[in-house]
Amino acid sequence: MDIVSPRGFLYSVAKAGIKYPDRYDIALIYSKKPAQVAGVFTTNQIKAAPVKICMRRIRSGQAQALILNSGNANACTGQNGIDNALKITNYLADRLNINKEHVLPLSTGVIGVPLPVEKIIKAVDELVSSLGNAQPAQVAEAIMTTDTFPKLTYRQIKEDTALTILGICKGAGMISPNMATMLCAILTDAKISSDLMKEALRDAVAQSFNSITVDGDMSTNDTVLMLANGESDIKIERKTTLWKQFKGALTDLCIELSKMIVKDGEGATKFITVNVKGAKTAQDAKRVARAVANSLLVKTAFYGCDPNWGRVIAAAGYSGVSLKEEKIEIYINDICLFAKGMPTIKEEDLKESLKQSEIEILINLNLGKGQAKIFTTDLSEEYVRINSAYRT
Amino acid sequence: MDIVSPRGFLYSVAKAGIKYPDRYDIALIYSKKPAQVAGVFTTNQIKAAPVKICMRRIRSGQAQALILNSGNANACTGQNGIDNALKITNYLADRLNINKEHVLPLSTGVIGVPLPVEKIIKAVDELVSSLGNAQPAQVAEAIMTTDTFPKLTYRQIKEDTALTILGICKGAGMISPNMATMLCAILTDAKISSDLMKEALRDAVAQSFNSITVDGDMSTNDTVLMLANGESDIKIERKTTLWKQFKGALTDLCIELSKMIVKDGEGATKFITVNVKGAKTAQDAKRVARAVANSLLVKTAFYGCDPNWGRVIAAAGYSGVSLKEEKIEIYINDICLFAKGMPTIKEEDLKESLKQSEIEILINLNLGKGQAKIFTTDLSEEYVRINSAYRT
Repeated sequence: MDIVSPRGFLYSVAKAGIKYPDRYDIALIYSKKPAQVAGVFTTNQIKAAPVKICMRRIRSGQAQALILNSGNANACTGQNGIDNALKITNYLADRLNINKEHVLPLSTGVIGVPLPVEKIIKAVDELVSSLGNAQPAQVAEAIMTTDTFPKLTYRQIKEDTALTILGICKGAGMISPNMATMLCAILTDAKISSDLMKEALRDAVAQSFNSITVDGDMSTNDTVLMLANGESDIKIERKTTLWKQFKGALTDLCIELSKMIVKDGEGATKFITVNVKGAKTAQDAKRVARAVANSLLVKTAFYGCDPNWGRVIAAAGYSGVSLKEEKIEIYINDICLFAKGMPTIKEEDLKESLKQSEIEILINLNLGKGQAKIFTTDLSEEYVRINSAYRT
Repeated sequence: MDIVSPRGFLYSVAKAGIKYPDRYDIALIYSKKPAQVAGVFTTNQIKAAPVKICMRRIRSGQAQALILNSGNANACTGQNGIDNALKITNYLADRLNINKEHVLPLSTGVIGVPLPVEKIIKAVDELVSSLGNAQPAQVAEAIMTTDTFPKLTYRQIKEDTALTILGICKGAGMISPNMATMLCAILTDAKISSDLMKEALRDAVAQSFNSITVDGDMSTNDTVLMLANGESDIKIERKTTLWKQFKGALTDLCIELSKMIVKDGEGATKFITVNVKGAKTAQDAKRVARAVANSLLVKTAFYGCDPNWGRVIAAAGYSGVSLKEEKIEIYINDICLFAKGMPTIKEEDLKESLKQSEIEILINLNLGKGQAKIFTTDLSEEYVRINSAYRT
């Protein structure tokens, strides 16, 4: 797929040698004009230095440059970590001759290791002098860690090419403090206020990046930043058809990116959708879906192509949500396995269907109208191997 | 170790052929006199039929016989499951000529499969006619599923042999609905009211069976039942030295049994104690300890002998408990790895120490006096193999 960039954004990448020599590990995304900005961040109470800086800086509603690196998360590095990130962003602002507060850092990689500031400063010179020489796909590659493929996509709305939204992200476990995390930059040439964009972004993230789980762990660095530079001259205002289209396109883009992350889940062999319906509230539905999606026993069962609905219902039962056993229905790939308090078919009949690489578990609680979907993976020996052997 | 049984209890085992032929899979524990009873059960909202029956019956405060089986959990079996369990317990009560309400069923094994009632009724005849022929260790063996060794121990207080508490349990994953669960029968010849015993049991379970986790999953069948038949003639009353001794011995016994379960954790290669201190409350401490103990990334890191404190602090950070990063201290096997917001030593220096089979992770939040300990295991490829390949 050819990727289309929104107007007015420039890209560059460089080899800073942060963790490995001779690998593109740092990238710059620059908007010719200061852009409106919105962000969503990890809710982990342990937040990396770049996350703290971004959270503070986006309050102004404006940003112009994102500097992204892999190989080092700059997390659990104390005041020194903040100082290092500021040194780098200030230097970049000077070189670009833009407002210091308009530079936002995003980092992913090892926790607890100081950033190699000198190496990065050197790379910043290169990023600035080569600005415009890279494509979005190269940015996506520069931020990969355990990712096995670069993740980016775009959407266009209104007369084909008039307005573009581009998303670039990385992530392969929800977290692996040594290397992984979820970072995402979304760029658009729409003309939209940061407040309105924040609203659209929160909704989109809730249905996408906040609806996936690989291992239930949550990173110190998870960051989604969205910039809108207005270069399309198409203004988006609330309660218009365009607003709906924009929200729809953004959500769709985020879901596509988040599915890429799940498909690249460490050691994953299957893509599993846990779809919960009939809960009293959407929140209840999400809790049940999350408990099922994070259950090791559910994940290992599906890895083994075992239609083990007993593990599914047991996970629903300890989710903390109030249930009625006799009302619950469980379907796997549209086949009903459990209803009215009892199993309905022989599980063996499902074996073949479970050999597919995409599985849908549908749980109808039959208590109300709340629903939620969570995307996840199975759990294989390979996950254990990746996460136990990485540094040994 | 020779196991001492409290006075006035008799045991028998039989081969009912519930799941496998020619295997002791059913056991009877009988008290010559009606005993005081107390119980603690799974908080999973999906409860197996025997759990529902036990919860109702122990309200009377009295019980006289426990019938325990492996091979079938009698869970998610609807009204039929209740009816089947009642058929069996009623038949047993008739044969023993005791009050029907004084028979308590405990089941572990496959979920969603009807109990083979006829086979079990036949075995009940054998259990009754051979009552007294078995030792506690044989009962422990009859209730094993994926357990690799029988689990039982005892404590005596007051003049060596005067008062005995015996515990028999099974469990190897916190749950594997096809086969595993946690069942425990505690028997004593103390003279104690069911209310007082309930209090002692709740405390003991909180520090033992409710402080372990293998995979974070919680069974539909988890049951701890305690019977006191008074045959020692030693009366236990509140606010006496004996009460303290009794509570201490009971807690100690439960901790020993729960450690056996963790050590037998599916695929486990290491026994890990997560010790959280300095939390605002004991509840906060338990939440942090549980988040760390259940983190796949922490468990796989320790499997790989990787002193990855980054994964530990990240798990603490998403536990939902309010933390101050700069106050947190993390020790692994007494060596400080993280303090004042930054790493303190080279992780490589810890490598050797992590090769031990017992690991202690100590997290001091330095915010208060709350503390909690959780016992858990690492996570190996073998866990995945056991739980994915079991039925395939």
